[in-house]
Amino acid sequence: MPKPASEHDFLEQCFDDLFPMFRSITGPGIEQSIEYLTQFMPLVLEKVPSGSKVFDWTTPREWHCQRARLWGPNGALICDTDINNLQVVNYSTPIDRDVSLEELKQHLHHLPDLPTAIPYVTSYYKENWGFCISNDVYESLSNGTYRVLIEAKFIDGGVPFASCVLPGESEKEVLLSSYLCHPSLANNELSGPLALLSLYRRLSSWKKRRYTYRFLVNPETIGSLCFIHRYQDHLNKFLVGGLILTCVGGPAERLRYKASRRGDTIMDELMFALSEGKEGCGISLEYQNFDPTSGSDERQYCAPGFNYPMGQISRTVYGEYDGYHNSLDDKQFMGIDSLLNSVDAIERVLTVFEISGYPVNQSPFGEPQLGKRNLYPSMNSQSTRDKSDDMTIDSRTKLNRILTLLNMGDGLNRMRVVADACHCSVEELRYTVEELEEQGLLKLEVRS
Amino acid sequence: MPKPASEHDFLEQCFDDLFPMFRSITGPGIEQSIEYLTQFMPLVLEKVPSGSKVFDWTTPREWHCQRARLWGPNGALICDTDINNLQVVNYSTPIDRDVSLEELKQHLHHLPDLPTAIPYVTSYYKENWGFCISNDVYESLSNGTYRVLIEAKFIDGGVPFASCVLPGESEKEVLLSSYLCHPSLANNELSGPLALLSLYRRLSSWKKRRYTYRFLVNPETIGSLCFIHRYQDHLNKFLVGGLILTCVGGPAERLRYKASRRGDTIMDELMFALSEGKEGCGISLEYQNFDPTSGSDERQYCAPGFNYPMGQISRTVYGEYDGYHNSLDDKQFMGIDSLLNSVDAIERVLTVFEISGYPVNQSPFGEPQLGKRNLYPSMNSQSTRDKSDDMTIDSRTKLNRILTLLNMGDGLNRMRVVADACHCSVEELRYTVEELEEQGLLKLEVRS
Amino acid sequence: MPKPASEHDFLEQCFDDLFPMFRSITGPGIEQSIEYLTQFMPLVLEKVPSGSKVFDWTTPREWHCQRARLWGPNGALICDTDINNLQVVNYSTPIDRDVSLEELKQHLHHLPDLPTAIPYVTSYYKENWGFCISNDVYESLSNGTYRVLIEAKFIDGGVPFASCVLPGESEKEVLLSSYLCHPSLANNELSGPLALLSLYRRLSSWKKRRYTYRFLVNPETIGSLCFIHRYQDHLNKFLVGGLILTCVGGPAERLRYKASRRGDTIMDELMFALSEGKEGCGISLEYQNFDPTSGSDERQYCAPGFNYPMGQISRTVYGEYDGYHNSLDDKQFMGIDSLLNSVDAIERVLTVFEISGYPVNQSPFGEPQLGKRNLYPSMNSQSTRDKSDDMTIDSRTKLNRILTLLNMGDGLNRMRVVADACHCSVEELRYTVEELEEQGLLKLEVRS
Repeated sequence: MPKPASEHDFLEQCFDDLFPMFRSITGPGIEQSIEYLTQFMPLVLEKVPSGSKVFDWTTPREWHCQRARLWGPNGALICDTDINNLQVVNYSTPIDRDVSLEELKQHLHHLPDLPTAIPYVTSYYKENWGFCISNDVYESLSNGTYRVLIEAKFIDGGVPFASCVLPGESEKEVLLSSYLCHPSLANNELSGPLALLSLYRRLSSWKKRRYTYRFLVNPETIGSLCFIHRYQDHLNKFLVGGLILTCVGGPAERLRYKASRRGDTIMDELMFALSEGKEGCGISLEYQNFDPTSGSDERQYCAPGFNYPMGQISRTVYGEYDGYHNSLDDKQFMGIDSLLNSVDAIERVLTVFEISGYPVNQSPFGEPQLGKRNLYPSMNSQSTRDKSDDMTIDSRTKLNRILTLLNMGDGLNRMRVVADACHCSVEELRYTVEELEEQGLLKLEVRS
Repeated sequence: MPKPASEHDFLEQCFDDLFPMFRSITGPGIEQSIEYLTQFMPLVLEKVPSGSKVFDWTTPREWHCQRARLWGPNGALICDTDINNLQVVNYSTPIDRDVSLEELKQHLHHLPDLPTAIPYVTSYYKENWGFCISNDVYESLSNGTYRVLIEAKFIDGGVPFASCVLPGESEKEVLLSSYLCHPSLANNELSGPLALLSLYRRLSSWKKRRYTYRFLVNPETIGSLCFIHRYQDHLNKFLVGGLILTCVGGPAERLRYKASRRGDTIMDELMFALSEGKEGCGISLEYQNFDPTSGSDERQYCAPGFNYPMGQISRTVYGEYDGYHNSLDDKQFMGIDSLLNSVDAIERVLTVFEISGYPVNQSPFGEPQLGKRNLYPSMNSQSTRDKSDDMTIDSRTKLNRILTLLNMGDGLNRMRVVADACHCSVEELRYTVEELEEQGLLKLEVRS
Repeated sequence: MPKPASEHDFLEQCFDDLFPMFRSITGPGIEQSIEYLTQFMPLVLEKVPSGSKVFDWTTPREWHCQRARLWGPNGALICDTDINNLQVVNYSTPIDRDVSLEELKQHLHHLPDLPTAIPYVTSYYKENWGFCISNDVYESLSNGTYRVLIEAKFIDGGVPFASCVLPGESEKEVLLSSYLCHPSLANNELSGPLALLSLYRRLSSWKKRRYTYRFLVNPETIGSLCFIHRYQDHLNKFLVGGLILTCVGGPAERLRYKASRRGDTIMDELMFALSEGKEGCGISLEYQNFDPTSGSDERQYCAPGFNYPMGQISRTVYGEYDGYHNSLDDKQFMGIDSLLNSVDAIERVLTVFEISGYPVNQSPFGEPQLGKRNLYPSMNSQSTRDKSDDMTIDSRTKLNRILTLLNMGDGLNRMRVVADACHCSVEELRYTVEELEEQGLLKLEVRS
């Protein structure tokens, strides 16, 4: 399903604009990034004030870092965040003084195995400062006095997040979320929000949305906790499924789905079917069980006190590429085409998710009189016995699907189970479901 | 277990009397058939008036067809329901006029693959008329003017059904049901009601019935819906199991059980055990899961709004014989012996069903003192350790069964599970169960 | 884990003192035995009066047998309970008269297959008298007049039992029980109470007991019923697990655990894991499902009306040795070393049982902020990503265990399941559990 060049170009332009912004989990960079996205989707910014109690956490002050620089003994500029904002340890305290090489090395981060890469390092919750440099540069440092200048301050502000919704027939909500706190990283940062933006544009053009879709961007971990803290009642009431989007670019051939903690949500079941080659929609997908020891914001949504039906979708992740959390993770590595391929697949998943709920027969006492609705042959003879109405040739299959949907439609069986009983995909049942809905014989329900 | 010739002869006489009656889902033929059976079992006829709302259905008017005839261009009589009442499309509208062969052919039904068979065709809920003829006759028709005369009228009457009960120790009820609406068909019609009649006679001579047994005859589909509509509260309160009897004659070697929608009722479990060769009672039986896309009245009982514990028992069914719904389905094909063989098996199944409930230990706090009831050796020595009382040689097996029945008898385990734990059949536990019941130590419970 | 010689010697002395006491299910012998144990553990004796209704049973009168003797025709003493108290049928009625050999033989018990063994025979609930002799003696009896003298009486007294507790942090109780009614038998009698005594001494020296431990000795069957009858409310409220100790000596290499009737208690699960070689603590154990047809007091605890979480632990049992219930079951056969080996294993099992409950995350809304508790690396860089804090080298494993404990800690998963998810034993999680408990992040709960 090749997309028009314009979508590619549009996302590439967004990427180029967003990449250099000096982001962190708070402060001007992330807010500027959110504001940029607001041009294309009606995100509403919210902030949870610094020092707030958010479940077990206390929200940090905002980090405003104007610029950080490091000069060598000879006065040469070694680090400058105006050139590459990965070069300062994120959330570094301000400093302006001379240090020996020995002292400096305690504050330098480099990657011996990747000599040219600049690592991405943070210290959000413990006061510290530091610089990140390539190993090549690190090895070339000579003894002498270095000057460090980090122009930063901590300000009472708040933790930002932003969301918008596309309303659907039901208030039941699907949450699509990504994080936007890493500076100058491609796959493990911008791929997520850009996929979110692309999905917003596509879903807004759907003719029919059964669910309301919420799109959320936040700083990782603390941002999702702030969102959940503020929206907990809403989520408890309306959330029926969702995806954390992370690392959805890169060269990996298959998407990877990490199931929710429950492991039996409608989305889990659908993704598992896809991983088994069902639904025949050409999506190659790997299914993994929930794991609390690594991952992204699903670790918060899937804490035992919430246990929300949130999974995580990714493509090229930690452990699968050298560039994880360093400057090798750039646009070329991520690939706009790869990102678009992920978006295609996720959109397709959501179209199946839309009809993956629980069918409920509205006339469950005996078989409804299908004949009067032109869904059953009016004459019972050998020549009509294989047909479901008088017009359609060989529509016995359709009649079987109708009878199966109605009989299994007790509100306890999901569409996936019905589809298995019909030896077809959920997708293939769509037309029959919609016809029965129009006749008032069936409703699709969903539960959180 | 050969039956006395009288049962064979009795059923053959009933068959011969009932076969030619001009039945439909309403009207004189089915009522006459019910009245015939009333000579031998105390069926009470009930009718749901025409035009009644029965769940999603509206009951039809009665079809009174006096006679239907078709004459050829030369005046020769081609069809005459006085000769074979399959020859008119059941529920045909009245007509009396001349038609061309071309027009007539739109109303003729024949079976090209079975040149001598007259098909059975109905059009209950859409106004139409037609004749059914063999393909041989169809091929011989010459151009010209044909005379059609269907002397029929539609009358405000009702949908009939009839039932009677054999009371048992409990008001909990087992429903045995068959349909009686097809005219002049043997396996797929009279085998069911005749088996029902035979079972009525046998069960009425049982020394002990734990359950109440209800015997029901009705027109297929609409008749079972009418019965359920009127008896729904009763069924909800008392029904604990039952069988739809259909096509229980014919040459097939094995009986076939189609499970209830629940798939885990006591009857389902028993039939599954039989299909696995358990219960060792020589019944060869095939077990099939419930399927809403074909079958008989169990499709109504097992609609999701009812979900009653009703299965279907059959022998030679649709897809397994050429004569399905045509004149080849006659007494010779059905076979009275085959029918009796089915009755033997069903009676045997019911005797096991009687003790297939949930044993409930009436003295569940510790082991009861079996010694004072002469169920345990009074002296504990090596020579008595293998015995359960002082009189019986090698009755350790019996003691083990007693202890197992009492220990598992918490009202949650079925007899089937206890029997498996005892490495024997439910049947083999009967005597021990009855002994413990007499001692007041055990009750058998059943749940719907 | 070799024990100091003193434990061996201590138990051997107890064995030698207890062995000759003339025990029965009531009367002076069992009370004297309990009083002996009271020197070393604070057992409190209770009695349920003779003639009491205890569930389905009526408690018997006490049997006081001073001495029983049998003389031959030549005046030679053949049996004398002052020499071996197995020689009288336990609960024999008093008798003092001359009998012919023919009459006598009706009251003699011997074991043709074991010519030198004196069998142990009882007749608690039916009046009778008899003597037990070796087959060699039996074969040598000559015709003539024998004199039988059984000096016994039945007294209104009661059925005794005795228990004491070691209190723990929780009132939830673990019950360790054995029976003490057989006279002069070693493996199938004294091994149980002696193991109980040894466990009492060991557990009393534990630094921390999460549960309260109750130690119970009683006459088999009737004694456990009397205890349950009196303590039923207490057991219903507090009992969370327990073991019947029986036949824990003897030459068998492996311990054997017979599961509770539930089959899914924490103890059952732990024992099953041990039988599968998990927990890696070198205990070789066979796991058997519950069976109501043989065994000891667990048959009463696991009656359906109680269904208590009680299993049975044994080593060399009925069917596995010739000496069962006869004089071959002596100290040499039982072996003090074998008994101590069983005690070692049971103590080890109990230490794992202590932490085998349900972890409950006390901060379940999102991940707790582990960094502020020094349980998470304060700086996120490649070099710290594999660590859980700043001090510990390679503590990623520990962090994973923390995250898994917290995420699975919803009060529904047992430690066994968490351990499996962590690919380690429950024992290996002990330190992490305790650290999280100290931090207030986790509580271990247990349910009956």
